[in-house]
Amino acid sequence: MLTIHHLGKSQSERIVWLCEELNIPYELKIHDRDSVTMLSPPALKELHSLGAAPVICDGDLVLAESAAIVEYIINIHGEGRLALGPDHENYADYLYWFHFSNGNLQPVFGRNMMLNRANLASDNAILLSTQGRLVKVLTLLNDRLENNAYLAGQEFTAADIMSVFSLTTMRYFFHWDLSPYGNILKYLKRISDRPAYQMAMRKGDPTMPLLFT
Amino acid sequence: MLTIHHLGKSQSERIVWLCEELNIPYELKIHDRDSVTMLSPPALKELHSLGAAPVICDGDLVLAESAAIVEYIINIHGEGRLALGPDHENYADYLYWFHFSNGNLQPVFGRNMMLNRANLASDNAILLSTQGRLVKVLTLLNDRLENNAYLAGQEFTAADIMSVFSLTTMRYFFHWDLSPYGNILKYLKRISDRPAYQMAMRKGDPTMPLLFT
Repeated sequence: MLTIHHLGKSQSERIVWLCEELNIPYELKIHDRDSVTMLSPPALKELHSLGAAPVICDGDLVLAESAAIVEYIINIHGEGRLALGPDHENYADYLYWFHFSNGNLQPVFGRNMMLNRANLASDNAILLSTQGRLVKVLTLLNDRLENNAYLAGQEFTAADIMSVFSLTTMRYFFHWDLSPYGNILKYLKRISDRPAYQMAMRKGDPTMPLLFT
Repeated sequence: MLTIHHLGKSQSERIVWLCEELNIPYELKIHDRDSVTMLSPPALKELHSLGAAPVICDGDLVLAESAAIVEYIINIHGEGRLALGPDHENYADYLYWFHFSNGNLQPVFGRNMMLNRANLASDNAILLSTQGRLVKVLTLLNDRLENNAYLAGQEFTAADIMSVFSLTTMRYFFHWDLSPYGNILKYLKRISDRPAYQMAMRKGDPTMPLLFT
């Protein structure tokens, strides 16, 4: 059976959610952040040198990096479900939005979080340009969701599983108001109505209020 | 025919290199950065709202995000070459290192570049922790290359094409000394000997000295 190492309030919620959507059995090991530093605990560093979550174990395999784990689980245990293949009319959309999550969305939140902690003056040019980039990225996402129920099109896919963390739980680390982005908020409502998402959050982060607004 | 929009000194070198490795014909459109701000020019914003490179055009399709473009070209035009599939013994390694590039390597260079530009005190805690993260990531990469010629194993794959930019051209934007990482330097030597890499750099960035040391 798969083991998912999940760090509370982290990107590893993607993997718990994926397994719930695919109905794949897994053992869940929950790790807690240090209550002062919010850093991940030593147990995760023993599993993988970067000390980050998610990490999965599957027999002898120990695998980190959430996009890699998502592809691995879908293709090894999920019969390719929740991915779109080269024959699908939305193949390029799927690829774009799947990779957008770690290529643009999460990095721009991460850079904003970091600059926010560095206590720069509010008119610092780097700070302003990094905030401006976040607005651009969220506007692109909001525009995409104007006529599409999900990121790859009308169908829910792993591209959604990759992206939702940055819009929800990540805002515990860097708060950003989503109220100007009505399509994103409606999208998050659709996500929050999914039984598999609800189950994943109940199992992985049972005491964490979800940030949908 | 594919059109590759390449911005000089940028991640889009990955796509030119991929097409050279796969021997796929393409039309190359080179865009130059603003000589003062180093930002990408308006022509790229007209193609895609984030204004970043790479962007490819393939018939009516306009596609951005380098990892998405790499997968698209490999599966639509490259008969799956340079990717490892679920039946390959290095499948999980391939997935890990493919996604490591945009999931860890490039973001940690990006965050260091940003903090470097923000002119923080050299003992700033965020700065020190971000530099420490870069050391960890490079150490992991260096260890991986101790007994493996390429990132996924003994075989050159798209995981290499995704990662090399951060180790070479990215250091024009954030210089970091690689001399403590002997395996990485030997790896870059192997890469620089590849005819397809040489051809890609000659076509895309003909006047740029390559940073292999």
